[in-house]
Amino acid sequence: MDSELLTDQTDVCTRTRIAQTAERLFRQLGYQKTTVADIAKELRMSPANVYRFYESKKAINEAVAERLMREVEAAIQAIAERDAPASARLREIARTMAGMNAALYTGELRMHEMVEVALSESWHVVKGHIERKSAVFERVIADGIAAGEFTIPDASLGARCAQIALLRFFHPRMLVECAGETVPSLDQQVDFVLAALGAAPPRLTRAET
Amino acid sequence: MDSELLTDQTDVCTRTRIAQTAERLFRQLGYQKTTVADIAKELRMSPANVYRFYESKKAINEAVAERLMREVEAAIQAIAERDAPASARLREIARTMAGMNAALYTGELRMHEMVEVALSESWHVVKGHIERKSAVFERVIADGIAAGEFTIPDASLGARCAQIALLRFFHPRMLVECAGETVPSLDQQVDFVLAALGAAPPRLTRAET
Repeated sequence: MDSELLTDQTDVCTRTRIAQTAERLFRQLGYQKTTVADIAKELRMSPANVYRFYESKKAINEAVAERLMREVEAAIQAIAERDAPASARLREIARTMAGMNAALYTGELRMHEMVEVALSESWHVVKGHIERKSAVFERVIADGIAAGEFTIPDASLGARCAQIALLRFFHPRMLVECAGETVPSLDQQVDFVLAALGAAPPRLTRAET
Repeated sequence: MDSELLTDQTDVCTRTRIAQTAERLFRQLGYQKTTVADIAKELRMSPANVYRFYESKKAINEAVAERLMREVEAAIQAIAERDAPASARLREIARTMAGMNAALYTGELRMHEMVEVALSESWHVVKGHIERKSAVFERVIADGIAAGEFTIPDASLGARCAQIALLRFFHPRMLVECAGETVPSLDQQVDFVLAALGAAPPRLTRAET
């Protein structure tokens, strides 16, 4: 029993090492150019051994993507748990997501390639991420409703609508495509979302053109 | 002078015929597979003659994309001019844009290919379309402000924010990617946008899951 547990733990470590090495190579060489053989070589193991842990390069990509997504989720979860007005937490969550995603997708264009593959081939992984982000949004909006800060009746629907309204600042492809657009700014769009949630008074300021 | 005018008109007709023929072939064969030679052959003219009117296949694509965009613009402009509450006009504009775009991009996947090319290679054409759509949104929102229907102070910024909030239902790539998502529905997201514009009372209903 004990030796089985030990093997399990070693396996978890090897899986993690493979994913970390893959992530580094994806950043250095790009996703398409990195082969399972490259990853194996870096780890001084055989490709066959890598395949014992991940059935395909796609599966490795999913592990890397999931780790990056979990980082974003942990960051916004920490903000959600702060003792601050819901509207301030929502704004900070939006800024954090936009900033982390922009760094990843527009800053490191090689990671963008990896994300594109995940978006088109591993939708279930992305979907899990969206669900977990929604739960964070919903929790903060529910807090805001309970505190009388927001008048929207349904926190779950409000969370979905808010995320869709902010998609331009979160979505990898939209971030790249809209990189040159300055109006609305993220803060202006957050103001718009807060107004939709029923935060009073509307704080929209005149567009700077 | 008259004969020059006549030549100009003939040229305009030829340009239009080339674009119409190209559009038909893009639908039938797909954008990538259609060559300038194919278009010329359909029109019983030489490829060199086609190049007299459009310097490249990209230029033909831009003419086709622009025509399709103008169709959407004309449809929403007609709604903007109706004698109806601003919120009802905005909802109808959103439905019309979503419906026309979905038919084009998710219904006819071959046109989707053409749109992808326009999005990545002819951003100035797309940008013009976005500007003209913004003007329609702004006009309706300004009407709503003047009528006391909306409390948002800035129609121009409100128009930008509203379009960004609805991007998931308008943007070719988002339409394809989010095709399976049911919450929020377009009408729920329009409710959210109307609430952000300061339309009272918020009419958000419980999410149907």
